[in-house]
Amino acid sequence: MENIGQSELLETRNRISPYLHNTPVLSSRIINEAAGVELYFKCEGFQKTGSFKARGASNAVLSLADAKAEQGVATHSSGNHGQALAWAAQGRGIPAYIVMPENAPIVKVAAVRNYGAEVIFCTPNLAARESGLAQVQKRTGASFVPPYNHPDIIAGQSTAAQELFEEKPELDALFCPVGGGGLLAGSALAAHYFAERCRVYAGEPAQADDAFRSFYGGKLISEHEPNTIADGLRTTLGPLNFEIIKELVTDIFLVEEEEIVAAMKMIYQYLKIVIEPSCAVPLAAILKNKDRFSGQKIGLILSGANVDLEKLPF
Amino acid sequence: MENIGQSELLETRNRISPYLHNTPVLSSRIINEAAGVELYFKCEGFQKTGSFKARGASNAVLSLADAKAEQGVATHSSGNHGQALAWAAQGRGIPAYIVMPENAPIVKVAAVRNYGAEVIFCTPNLAARESGLAQVQKRTGASFVPPYNHPDIIAGQSTAAQELFEEKPELDALFCPVGGGGLLAGSALAAHYFAERCRVYAGEPAQADDAFRSFYGGKLISEHEPNTIADGLRTTLGPLNFEIIKELVTDIFLVEEEEIVAAMKMIYQYLKIVIEPSCAVPLAAILKNKDRFSGQKIGLILSGANVDLEKLPF
Repeated sequence: MENIGQSELLETRNRISPYLHNTPVLSSRIINEAAGVELYFKCEGFQKTGSFKARGASNAVLSLADAKAEQGVATHSSGNHGQALAWAAQGRGIPAYIVMPENAPIVKVAAVRNYGAEVIFCTPNLAARESGLAQVQKRTGASFVPPYNHPDIIAGQSTAAQELFEEKPELDALFCPVGGGGLLAGSALAAHYFAERCRVYAGEPAQADDAFRSFYGGKLISEHEPNTIADGLRTTLGPLNFEIIKELVTDIFLVEEEEIVAAMKMIYQYLKIVIEPSCAVPLAAILKNKDRFSGQKIGLILSGANVDLEKLPF
Repeated sequence: MENIGQSELLETRNRISPYLHNTPVLSSRIINEAAGVELYFKCEGFQKTGSFKARGASNAVLSLADAKAEQGVATHSSGNHGQALAWAAQGRGIPAYIVMPENAPIVKVAAVRNYGAEVIFCTPNLAARESGLAQVQKRTGASFVPPYNHPDIIAGQSTAAQELFEEKPELDALFCPVGGGGLLAGSALAAHYFAERCRVYAGEPAQADDAFRSFYGGKLISEHEPNTIADGLRTTLGPLNFEIIKELVTDIFLVEEEEIVAAMKMIYQYLKIVIEPSCAVPLAAILKNKDRFSGQKIGLILSGANVDLEKLPF
């Protein structure tokens, strides 16, 4: 936390906000009645590149010194972070190198290329991804921009909650999903500095529960065999993220797969927006713990909208 | 047209806008590139009751004299107009009676009842609907509020385009879907009075082409056996609507079912919003006639978002 103070969060917001959307906040009377709370959904699916990941990626890219930036940025990702980094690099006019597994969906590869990035394919396992990344860094001198375990990324992701607190200063609670922990750690820091009375909670799939086990065990757990529809949350909690989360987050709630699908359908049906499954996890957690939050005003960050429409679970 | 002048449209907007959303206007760089135009989507799925029908229904309900209003309002509808009328009546604190076919989807019946309306079931054919409506009017004295063939409804539906022209006065063209013709006639009147240089066009399913045949035949055609996924456009063009449309609309374009589905998927994927199939018809028409509109700024009214998520065509 010592690296990411209040001034750092404010500077980050000033640095990146000219390039990003202040995403809309939506509500639904029917969902509120079902949950027994007042919910304010911060819709990051309408963010550039379709997810909050554009925030952290643009902060990392804009924070590089010119000489370093010229050599480009690199990461391994088959998901939203890869697209976000490609977009942010294109915005600064520098190269991006995205290492992707050779079985990545064609549409995701096309999206990354559409932002002008070079795609480097590798065998679909962690060792191959890391070695692919090392090779491209050696070849190009590009800076590695990790998906969540970095102060620039965490500070960038905090800006969604910063905007929400500005629009809804009266929130009692804020819910995020948790995967690698970038959004959750950033949101917890934003609450700590800008909305002190607002407690921060996370929802996590029971079938990808490493953050839950780390949080309540008091020690970062890396054994993790996720098996959840919430594909954005299959990553493992980062050490820096864990340090912030264990200090500033109040509770993490687990939810089952069918609860995720039911909450996802509710958001499509009543908010009338497209979301990816990960977004539904916090709403599922609130619906499962209604008694605890009865009558509260709760913010909820809908993390993104990059979903394979051919595979909707309803 | 003599009943629906500029002052009528302005009065209508003043009358109903306190109860409605000025719905958001969205854009997508990727859709613009695919279509070769600059598109501004007016998103009526975020309107009260999930469709533009709340505009016309509230105008009709608020225009009733007190003594008449007390006896309530009635219509036959299995779709968005029924929900919209129930909602508008509830807002004024008067009864609503909605005649619905006995095979209407349970979720639609529940939505109407959720707005406090009485549902009267009938055999699913036009004669039974009309006789069910006559019976409920005789029993209650309720005023019939038709779905599209009425000046109050047309004036109400014009307010979506009025809002869009205020936000985007530079539009070259405005596209609507056409079913009964309430939205198209209202939008054409709005352009006529408030955006004179903006041409108005409609998209219509080739498999529900009565407006197309009436428009180019110069005579209202009532033979109509619609068979399209765009369930909101299966209605037959109204005579009053036809009078306005034939005078003020520039062209009506037909599109095939697979073109509707492709445009619908494009909107889910790139605008990240839920729409019902009818909404996709105008975008399909633009994509099919790219050369004609190349480089233009085009408004497009996305009519609603009440869709059965279990039956998405992708």
